[in-house]
Amino acid sequence: MPDPVKLQEIDQHIVEHLDDSLHDLSVLCRQPSIVAQNYGIQECAELLAGLLEARGFSVQILPSGGSPVVVADAPGRSSKTMLLYNHYDVQPAEPLDLWTTPPFEPDIRDGRFFARGATDDKGHILCRLAALDAFKNIDGEYPCHIKFIVEGEEEIGSVHLPNFIEQNKAILRGDACLWEFGSVDYEDRPELYLGMRGICYVELRVKTAKLDAHSGMAGNIFPNAAWRLVWALNTLKDQDERILIPGFYDAVLPPSERDLALLAALPSEEEQIKRAYGVSSFLKGLTGAELRREQVFLPTCTICGITSGYQGPGSKTVLPAEASAKIDFRLVPNQDPVDIVAKLRKHLDAQGFSDITIHLHGGGKPARVNPDDPFIAICAEAAEEVYGKPVKVAPMVGGSGPMYPFVHVLNVPIGGAGVGYPGGRAHAPDENFRLDDFVKGAQHTARILARFSEMS
Amino acid sequence: MPDPVKLQEIDQHIVEHLDDSLHDLSVLCRQPSIVAQNYGIQECAELLAGLLEARGFSVQILPSGGSPVVVADAPGRSSKTMLLYNHYDVQPAEPLDLWTTPPFEPDIRDGRFFARGATDDKGHILCRLAALDAFKNIDGEYPCHIKFIVEGEEEIGSVHLPNFIEQNKAILRGDACLWEFGSVDYEDRPELYLGMRGICYVELRVKTAKLDAHSGMAGNIFPNAAWRLVWALNTLKDQDERILIPGFYDAVLPPSERDLALLAALPSEEEQIKRAYGVSSFLKGLTGAELRREQVFLPTCTICGITSGYQGPGSKTVLPAEASAKIDFRLVPNQDPVDIVAKLRKHLDAQGFSDITIHLHGGGKPARVNPDDPFIAICAEAAEEVYGKPVKVAPMVGGSGPMYPFVHVLNVPIGGAGVGYPGGRAHAPDENFRLDDFVKGAQHTARILARFSEMS
Repeated sequence: MPDPVKLQEIDQHIVEHLDDSLHDLSVLCRQPSIVAQNYGIQECAELLAGLLEARGFSVQILPSGGSPVVVADAPGRSSKTMLLYNHYDVQPAEPLDLWTTPPFEPDIRDGRFFARGATDDKGHILCRLAALDAFKNIDGEYPCHIKFIVEGEEEIGSVHLPNFIEQNKAILRGDACLWEFGSVDYEDRPELYLGMRGICYVELRVKTAKLDAHSGMAGNIFPNAAWRLVWALNTLKDQDERILIPGFYDAVLPPSERDLALLAALPSEEEQIKRAYGVSSFLKGLTGAELRREQVFLPTCTICGITSGYQGPGSKTVLPAEASAKIDFRLVPNQDPVDIVAKLRKHLDAQGFSDITIHLHGGGKPARVNPDDPFIAICAEAAEEVYGKPVKVAPMVGGSGPMYPFVHVLNVPIGGAGVGYPGGRAHAPDENFRLDDFVKGAQHTARILARFSEMS
Repeated sequence: MPDPVKLQEIDQHIVEHLDDSLHDLSVLCRQPSIVAQNYGIQECAELLAGLLEARGFSVQILPSGGSPVVVADAPGRSSKTMLLYNHYDVQPAEPLDLWTTPPFEPDIRDGRFFARGATDDKGHILCRLAALDAFKNIDGEYPCHIKFIVEGEEEIGSVHLPNFIEQNKAILRGDACLWEFGSVDYEDRPELYLGMRGICYVELRVKTAKLDAHSGMAGNIFPNAAWRLVWALNTLKDQDERILIPGFYDAVLPPSERDLALLAALPSEEEQIKRAYGVSSFLKGLTGAELRREQVFLPTCTICGITSGYQGPGSKTVLPAEASAKIDFRLVPNQDPVDIVAKLRKHLDAQGFSDITIHLHGGGKPARVNPDDPFIAICAEAAEEVYGKPVKVAPMVGGSGPMYPFVHVLNVPIGGAGVGYPGGRAHAPDENFRLDDFVKGAQHTARILARFSEMS
């Protein structure tokens, strides 16, 4: 066990140097790094490299095929190596008029830090550095070997990261990993996530003629792109939410008894969610543990958007020549996006929809962390010390992220700590974190590092 | 029979005053009058009234409940009254970037007149005036009593016209009517249309939450507006083009032997249509008389547009809270749009889609003209004189228009003449007519008026 006096000194250092941390964070947030618009990416990577070099890290800005990956390495007292995964890219800031203060001019008000990237994910980078700065100033060294892996494409699906990790696994080796985020829930209970779903995001397109036709002339004699798309989509999922692509569920692993027990222990947030979205009930009347199970342990087939023909006010009597739909499949272990696209293609062909083309916008495999890994216990114990409440352990979350290459290529367990809270507005205007959560997130990070460094 | 020398003078006058006609037409086309966007309607009605007053018409701009109706009256040599039905409203001009020159800045090039409204229907208004101007200048009077009925809601289904005609039938009485258009086919043969389908244009809308949700969180637990819409649409028509609403076909009258004979006599335009639209074959492999029969004597259910969720470039992982589709049912005798909407509502409810609302954008009944009416013979004879080819008589067309109140309330036979041709791009960018067709259309109009005025 780490020395409790030392831990208190570190806690204190984080509190006293909060302004220094927020200063560095402001520098990072003032630099837009919007990967979807290819805006400021290289500049932000270099700025981050500077912050890390100033702290004694040996930094490389490595090509990935897309945005460069910042890899930074520093030795520490223990020979164990902690990987810190983060990303320096951010979501687009639009709609700009809904921001109270400009997205790339950080502002502190009401005990909160506002900027695009505040919580997703630049605040988390500084949360890690606040903990490391405390060790360095108090001990003169880091508690263990630290390797930052900071990518610049998380917001577009970490397109190149899996291959980058595969190609660079020799230099990226480690013993555990802290994920890019951590958060508290509506009642300030710390949360720990042990898995993320994979994703397969496709666009289906169909073109039936070279231009739109008059619906009076063509209604009974021309193929209609919108009808083709509707009929094709209808073959993908039935009204009972069952996905109809043959073999779609073949690789699905059901949750374990342990997973179900973890889910059962989670508090309900149903009323908060219903109120926030104006939803009166959940699909299929789901509630409780069953709701939480289906929410994360079943794959999805979500239509994210459809477009065809005339969409303005009133009526236009047109027969559309083109139609498309964006579809997001969330995948659970052990589904694979490459396999899902192949099955989708085969299904569409078998159903008579060879005219519908599939465009893959992004894919990634699902991944799970073993809930009984000793590193998870360390993260949980450290959280309870800092937050004074037992941690909520979610065996899987609904969202997606590049956990797979960490778990299955680098073979590390993954824990979390951070600045997130339900009001953080990630991806939305007025993105922010609470200063108190920043302090706690950094203290939690420090206690995880301290414990991890002493692991046998 | 009208005096052939007089007719030649009139023909000549139309040719020599083409520039005057196009000047007045340009004034009309420069005024947008997009009824679907409620843009410029009143202004265009007043502009038209000015053109008619300048020609000695007594003009009223009458309220209809929607766009005003321009009713213009002028006496003539014969006591017979010809009704001229036209419309001054136009389709939306979008997509603007596909126009070679701006839609509301008329341009003449390659012997064609380009503008939104060129052929549908402002060019036809000037086509009538070109014929009338010739009579006035040569004879000092019109050949018969003329009544213009020019509405401003044709492009949204003539919502208020049937009731307007019912309410004003005393002042709208006539002996025959020239419809809003006339055209030649791919081989410059004049066409005469003896019926139009009815229409029932609806928008289906569904809202499942008060805002879009993150698809990772909500994919399996929130109702998805896009899926609701897809499933509902799929219950309306099957892949064999059979409309599935119970009772939808109940009132359908099959074509008569006379109709089938007229259809059989029509030349094939299949290859031209395929080439123009880049369509390789027609639905169900239809060809020949069977194709022409299904094209016009069967009702339709056409999706004109669908919109939901994210439609921009790349991917956005969103679960849409709203979705809508615009649907155009073309109706054949004796279907009724009021009955069809009621059956659609009942069907959606029975299929479990009470959450989907129906918004009626326009409706009108189908109508037929008796092919053996003497006025039809007059129109045909006049066409053959002008075009030098026998007229093609179509017993029914695929499009819709408010023929019903003319045929069944005002009790007039309906003929046609005009500027249309297959390259006219009505409802599309680069809408146009050929100047030569304008001249012929006006000459045809004049010869119909001359013959009609002498009918016993």
